[in-house]
Amino acid sequence: MNKVFFDVGLSLDGYLAGPNRRPGNPLGDGAIAIHEWMFATATFQQTHGAIPGTRGGGQRGADDDLVRAVVERAGAHVLGKRMFEEGEVGWGEEAPFHAPVFVLTHAPRGPWVRKGGTTFHFVTGGFAEALTRAKAAAKGKDVRIGGGADTIRQALRAGAIDDFTLHVAPLLLGSVAGQGGLRLFDDLGDLRLLAEPTGASHSAKATHLHFRVRSKG
Amino acid sequence: MNKVFFDVGLSLDGYLAGPNRRPGNPLGDGAIAIHEWMFATATFQQTHGAIPGTRGGGQRGADDDLVRAVVERAGAHVLGKRMFEEGEVGWGEEAPFHAPVFVLTHAPRGPWVRKGGTTFHFVTGGFAEALTRAKAAAKGKDVRIGGGADTIRQALRAGAIDDFTLHVAPLLLGSVAGQGGLRLFDDLGDLRLLAEPTGASHSAKATHLHFRVRSKG
Repeated sequence: MNKVFFDVGLSLDGYLAGPNRRPGNPLGDGAIAIHEWMFATATFQQTHGAIPGTRGGGQRGADDDLVRAVVERAGAHVLGKRMFEEGEVGWGEEAPFHAPVFVLTHAPRGPWVRKGGTTFHFVTGGFAEALTRAKAAAKGKDVRIGGGADTIRQALRAGAIDDFTLHVAPLLLGSVAGQGGLRLFDDLGDLRLLAEPTGASHSAKATHLHFRVRSKG
Repeated sequence: MNKVFFDVGLSLDGYLAGPNRRPGNPLGDGAIAIHEWMFATATFQQTHGAIPGTRGGGQRGADDDLVRAVVERAGAHVLGKRMFEEGEVGWGEEAPFHAPVFVLTHAPRGPWVRKGGTTFHFVTGGFAEALTRAKAAAKGKDVRIGGGADTIRQALRAGAIDDFTLHVAPLLLGSVAGQGGLRLFDDLGDLRLLAEPTGASHSAKATHLHFRVRSKG
């Protein structure tokens, strides 16, 4: 049975993205620092191509093991339209998913096939339809809710998330992100998620928190 | 040399306290759940007296070790006036600090000695004075900035914090705390704290994150 999960980086103060997000600045101002631990890993550099300013090859080790585990378990992805559009410009011919990606949108569009195994499918029927199709496409693997924040919140509100991982970068982003940045756990209305810690570890650049969802009420 | 630290419980969405805080409801609505892991420990029950509804004696183990380590390293405490007043009602004759406590206030008042080694000193000269006096009183041990959120923020803005621990309870409090709850890492203005992870562990009820402050700018 497919599990449905998300796996995201946050600042200490809970920001997932900074202000002024747009194509070419997909994380928003200041938020690259949240993901430094991930950008440095060998697996990230392999799946995303060379990242400017990083040393060739990337780093192996515990952080890399975490990134690789996510790549290996994700048989399909669900993305919001904005995250797709913000990433689209930078991905080039080979998008980094290497699996089917279901994009929530209002504009019908045929599948968009990229090199390396990524095919984007554009879903106009809402989150539930995207999730159903992603589960069917995942070939027994798990479904990653890739983001952005709105899409992860939709998944949480729908009670769809089985487990999740937060990678907390040891910095505050509020001075930059306070105006227009996005906190993951905002605007969740009446949601009273109850989870259970299933793991915790740290490297020099991030603390990794793993949870299983117990009650999605 | 004294270290200055804080050690607090937060929800997944960053709340330290719920709405409607007042004497008799010091944590605010819904926020008791954040601290369940701590209330269950033997050391907490010893230092705070019996907690209604908890089993006699409390639990030993990894969570208890963390609580005991904090009690042992704290030679003095700094508290905000509101946290003092909210706690005052419930503490009874034996306050749970068992060390000198420096309370930030505008109202001069003589020292208030409680059973068990807690003496409250009321400081009208601001955070810097309270910290200087706490360091002098700590007898070579460390100084804990006990809270509330405003006092910890003052300490962060003053560049006074050497290390800190966050105990993250695996639940969302926004549905209760969104109106009037307190997030620890809010209202920090231009502060760009940069820390380094120094530890991470978890129990069934909380994930414990330890950090050393690298840059207080």
